[in-house]
Amino acid sequence: MHYVAIVTVVALLQFLYFGVLVGKARAQYGIAAPAVSGNEIFERYFRVQMNTLEQLLMFLPSLWIFAHYANPLWAASLGVVFVIGRAIYCRSYARDPKNRSLGFALTALPTLIMMAGILWQAIRTLMAAQ
Amino acid sequence: MHYVAIVTVVALLQFLYFGVLVGKARAQYGIAAPAVSGNEIFERYFRVQMNTLEQLLMFLPSLWIFAHYANPLWAASLGVVFVIGRAIYCRSYARDPKNRSLGFALTALPTLIMMAGILWQAIRTLMAAQ
Amino acid sequence: MHYVAIVTVVALLQFLYFGVLVGKARAQYGIAAPAVSGNEIFERYFRVQMNTLEQLLMFLPSLWIFAHYANPLWAASLGVVFVIGRAIYCRSYARDPKNRSLGFALTALPTLIMMAGILWQAIRTLMAAQ
Repeated sequence: MHYVAIVTVVALLQFLYFGVLVGKARAQYGIAAPAVSGNEIFERYFRVQMNTLEQLLMFLPSLWIFAHYANPLWAASLGVVFVIGRAIYCRSYARDPKNRSLGFALTALPTLIMMAGILWQAIRTLMAAQ
Repeated sequence: MHYVAIVTVVALLQFLYFGVLVGKARAQYGIAAPAVSGNEIFERYFRVQMNTLEQLLMFLPSLWIFAHYANPLWAASLGVVFVIGRAIYCRSYARDPKNRSLGFALTALPTLIMMAGILWQAIRTLMAAQ
Repeated sequence: MHYVAIVTVVALLQFLYFGVLVGKARAQYGIAAPAVSGNEIFERYFRVQMNTLEQLLMFLPSLWIFAHYANPLWAASLGVVFVIGRAIYCRSYARDPKNRSLGFALTALPTLIMMAGILWQAIRTLMAAQ
């Protein structure tokens, strides 16, 4: 599970970095806390952070359960795709929110694959035990 | 733990579905990203998704720790109540935010029960080891 | 892992309490759902809750992986610092958002220390296995 642990921390550090980008945009465009709107560019970085929060909530449990059921190396590899997808998502969303589809797909797909794998394995094991 | 894994994935897929509803409301009411306000109905679906994010963050760790301490089948059953409660929450919030109490209670209660069970078991075990 | 389980539940109950504070501010300042803006004090409590959500997402996985790799008692102790830091964060943010740095640092630091510990242990173990 070492690779799964490493990819977990890397994904969380990337999320932390997106939070730093929000803080920088806050300073740059003069959006003082607690406000979270008032400048288009700031709002883009804020939405990148929030969407990543939503994605991580689905990704992290899926990653660990899939690593347990299937294969830690496959799980970690899908985790690398997730992190690269998020990097693309952040860059493209900041430039133009309309271009966020590729990065979004690259982070949603690994999670969906792992969810399908978990359901498949769990149900198959329960069936076999009948 | 197979049932716990299945209920975890089902709860995450439900969360994903709430995200799809937000995307559909975004298109239907013309709220272009990164905006998250401007139409009452869109804001309701957005709040359903955000509140579910908050609830899942408390539910998922409680589910797995409770499954470990107490009984995976009880944990999974409480998880089913959580998912049904969230479905009711989404429907009633979208119609009128004032009616969100029942669905909210049905998702908060399973988590609170599991939290109480964890504290009880963990403290009892530590006491017994004295 | 009993202490880690207890500190997890305490951190989640604290998050739940921040949600209750948001609900109370909603009633007190007349911000009806689904609105999440319109009053400065309400927005402060709302931001405390959202920021805690972000911090917990990084804290909880780090806590459990670190407890596994390093030492459950150290993990639980860093968790206690996290919870105290969040309490300070909430109090100071509600008074004046500009004073939120100390509480923020006290919750971010335990997570960063645990992340560094996980990376160190995981990479060292992988190296040793070569």
